Amino acid sequence: MYKVLNNDLIKEYIDGTPQIRSLLLEDNETINKLDVSEIGDGNLNFVYIIKSAKKSFILKQAVPFLRCVGEEYPLSRIRMTFEIEALRIEKEICPSFVPEIYYDSKDMSLVVMQNLDSHKILRGEMINRETFPLLSKHISTFLADTLFYTTDFYLSSAQKKDNVKKFINKELCKITEDFIFTHPYEENKTNEYSPKLDMREVKKFRESLEVKKAVAKMRYKFMTNAQALLHGDLHTGSIMLNKDETYVIDPEFAFYGPIGFDVGIYLANLVMSYFSLEKNENSYRDYVRGMIKDTWDMFASKFKANMLENEKKLKSLQWNYPKGMEHFESYTDDYIKDIFDDSVGFMACEMFRRTVGLAKVADIADIEDLERRARIENKILKCASKLITSKYSQIDEIIDEIERYATF
Amino acid sequence: MYKVLNNDLIKEYIDGTPQIRSLLLEDNETINKLDVSEIGDGNLNFVYIIKSAKKSFILKQAVPFLRCVGEEYPLSRIRMTFEIEALRIEKEICPSFVPEIYYDSKDMSLVVMQNLDSHKILRGEMINRETFPLLSKHISTFLADTLFYTTDFYLSSAQKKDNVKKFINKELCKITEDFIFTHPYEENKTNEYSPKLDMREVKKFRESLEVKKAVAKMRYKFMTNAQALLHGDLHTGSIMLNKDETYVIDPEFAFYGPIGFDVGIYLANLVMSYFSLEKNENSYRDYVRGMIKDTWDMFASKFKANMLENEKKLKSLQWNYPKGMEHFESYTDDYIKDIFDDSVGFMACEMFRRTVGLAKVADIADIEDLERRARIENKILKCASKLITSKYSQIDEIIDEIERYATF
Repeated sequence: MYKVLNNDLIKEYIDGTPQIRSLLLEDNETINKLDVSEIGDGNLNFVYIIKSAKKSFILKQAVPFLRCVGEEYPLSRIRMTFEIEALRIEKEICPSFVPEIYYDSKDMSLVVMQNLDSHKILRGEMINRETFPLLSKHISTFLADTLFYTTDFYLSSAQKKDNVKKFINKELCKITEDFIFTHPYEENKTNEYSPKLDMREVKKFRESLEVKKAVAKMRYKFMTNAQALLHGDLHTGSIMLNKDETYVIDPEFAFYGPIGFDVGIYLANLVMSYFSLEKNENSYRDYVRGMIKDTWDMFASKFKANMLENEKKLKSLQWNYPKGMEHFESYTDDYIKDIFDDSVGFMACEMFRRTVGLAKVADIADIEDLERRARIENKILKCASKLITSKYSQIDEIIDEIERYATF
Repeated sequence: MYKVLNNDLIKEYIDGTPQIRSLLLEDNETINKLDVSEIGDGNLNFVYIIKSAKKSFILKQAVPFLRCVGEEYPLSRIRMTFEIEALRIEKEICPSFVPEIYYDSKDMSLVVMQNLDSHKILRGEMINRETFPLLSKHISTFLADTLFYTTDFYLSSAQKKDNVKKFINKELCKITEDFIFTHPYEENKTNEYSPKLDMREVKKFRESLEVKKAVAKMRYKFMTNAQALLHGDLHTGSIMLNKDETYVIDPEFAFYGPIGFDVGIYLANLVMSYFSLEKNENSYRDYVRGMIKDTWDMFASKFKANMLENEKKLKSLQWNYPKGMEHFESYTDDYIKDIFDDSVGFMACEMFRRTVGLAKVADIADIEDLERRARIENKILKCASKLITSKYSQIDEIIDEIERYATF
C-alpha cells in the first residue's frame, strides 16, 4: 500500500523492509541509529539521505503531485515505475555510469540507491568553472551505448516493441511536449521572461515561418519516432560526477523517442554554459567548446562502432554479398547524419525553451547583471533560430555558428 | 473458452449466442434452418457465410496457426483482437467504407459481420478490366480520414499513446518486416521466382548500394514512425466493391506506423495492375493511370482539408498570430510532401516484394505466357529501383516514370 513517507515514517518503513534494513544495520541495532535528512532540491520528488554507522544511501520517493508546485498539480506517481525500469536497463548497459540500485518498490513508488556523496551536479560544477577530463568520454559512451542497445538494430523486433509498450510514458512526455515544444513558441502564461529581455526578439522567432515549421517538425518527431529508449531529460543537472566518475541520474522521462533528443538536450546545455561565460574566460571557453566537439565526435564514432560490430556478429543475409559490409557502413553513416540533424534541431528547441519557457538554467538565470543576462538570452534566441533553420554537415560548423552568435 | 469452429460447431455456437442467433432466426425456429459454408480463400483465417431465410452474415475466426501453411506455422490468434479493434475504429471514422460488425468475441477470436454479397474483390475486378467510377473517391477518403483522425494532430497526446500501446502488433508487423522489407532483398529461401525471370536483374538491385540503403531506410521507418493507425495491408485484395459502394476489409495488420505505408501499398497494387496490361488495352491503361493520379490527389487534398479544418477548430495558441494559419498551411504542405516521399518509397518496396518475394499478385502471377510475365516482372524491378532511389515532387512525375518503364 502506497503512502507518502517523511523523516519519521521512513525509519518505520526501513525497519519493516529487511532488504534495506540489513544494508544499514546489524540485526541487533535499533532503527534510532539512523540519520535521515531530506535533500529537498527536486522539482518532482522527495529525496532522502539515510545514514548509519555502516553505510549511507539515497531513498527517492515519487508523490502523486508535482512537488515544486504542490498538491494542486497532480502528477501520477507511476513516473517512479518508469524511472526504476529505465535505471535497470541503463545499469545493465552502462554499469559504470548509473548508480547502484539496492531496492525498489513500484507500490511505494520509491527506489533506494547509491549515495553519490563524493560527486556533484555537473551544472553547478560548470558554473564554478570546474573541468572534468573524463566527462565527454563517459557521456558519449553512455549515449552511444544506451541508445544503440535499445534500438531495432540490436533488439529483436518483438523485444523492441515490448519496450515501446512498457515505456509509453504519457504524463512526462506531455510535460516535454508542452514545455519544450509548445509553450515557448506562443504567448503562454506559463512562460517566464527575464526582466530586461527584448520582447521584440521573442515575437520575431514566434512569428517566423521557418522557425515555427522547424519547431513543429521537431515536436512531431519527438511524438512519433520510437527509435531508442531515451533518458528523456539529459541536461547538466541530471549528471553527477567527480574527476574520475560520471553518473547519469533521474531517468523518469524515459520513453522510446528519437535518439537526437538526448544528444541535443545535453549539447544545448553545454552551449548555454558557453554563452554564459565572461569575455576573459578564454580557457574555459576552449574547454566547453572541446566538450561540445568531443561529445559529438566520440558519440558518433562509438555509435558507428556499435552498429558495425553488431552487424559483423549478426551476419544478416541482406548485407551478405561482396560489398555488403561497405554498403551497411554507408547506411550507418547516413543514419548517424540523421541523428546529427535531429540533435541540432532538438538543441535549438532546448535553447529556446530555457530562455523563454518556464524552466531556466542557472548558468544564465543566476547572472545578476540583468542587462548582461538579457544580452546573452537574446544571443541564444538568435543562435537557436539560426541553428534550427539551417543545414549543417558537421559539428565544427555548429561550433563556429555558436561562436559567431556568442561574440564575447 | 476458445475452440476452433467448423461447419457443425458453428451452428452450436450460434445457438448458444443469443446476440447472433436473434439476427438470423425467430425464437421458435431451429438452428437446422441455417446454411453454413466456408469460403476458404483466406491465407490466415477461416471465413464462413451463414444464411437463414431472414438474413446472412460472415463469421471470421482466427486459428492459432497460419492457415495457408498449417499447424506447424504458429501464429497467435490475438491477431483477431487487432482486427476487431481496428474495424471498430475505422467504422467509427468511415462508416460507409467498413462492413457492419454485428458481434465480436476476443475469447473466441471471431467477428460476425455484414455479408458483402453484392460486392467483389477489387483485384479480381481489375483483372477482369472492370471500372469503378467512385472507387478513387472512396479510397482516398478512407485513407485521408482513417489516417488523419488517428494522428497526434487530431487525438490528444494521451489518447494517441494509448492507441499506440493497444496496437503493438508484434507478430503481424514481423511478417511485414520480413516479407516486405527483408527477404526480397536477399537470397532467402522463402522467396519465389517466376520460371523465366532474369536473375541477373534480381542480383543487380540486391547488390545496389542505393537500393539497399533506401530499402533499409523504409524498413526502419516502418518500424519506428508511429504516425497513425494503419490498415497495414491495404492491397487490392483487401477491398470489396461494386459500382456504388466500396468496403475495406481485413485490418489484422493494423498498428501505428507511417502514413505513407497504407498509401504506397495501395498505389503499388494499381501500378502492378498497370504493368500487367496488354499493349492494346489503351482505355484501361488510361483508367488505371487515372486511378493512381486521383487517389493521390484526392488523398492529399482531403488530408490537407482535415488538417486545416481541425486547426481552425483548435485555434491553438502556437499558430494564433496574424500569419499563423498561413504558416500552419505551409507546415501542412511540407508534412504531406513527406507522406508523398514515404508513399513512393513504400510503393517501390511492395513492387519488389510482389515480384521476388513469397507472395505474388494474381494480376501478374496468373499470366500464362511465362516469357511475357518475366518481361513485366523485370520492368517492375527496374522501375521500383528507379522510384526508390530518385526524388520526385508530384504524382505526375511518378506516373511518367511508370509509363517510361512499362513501355507497352
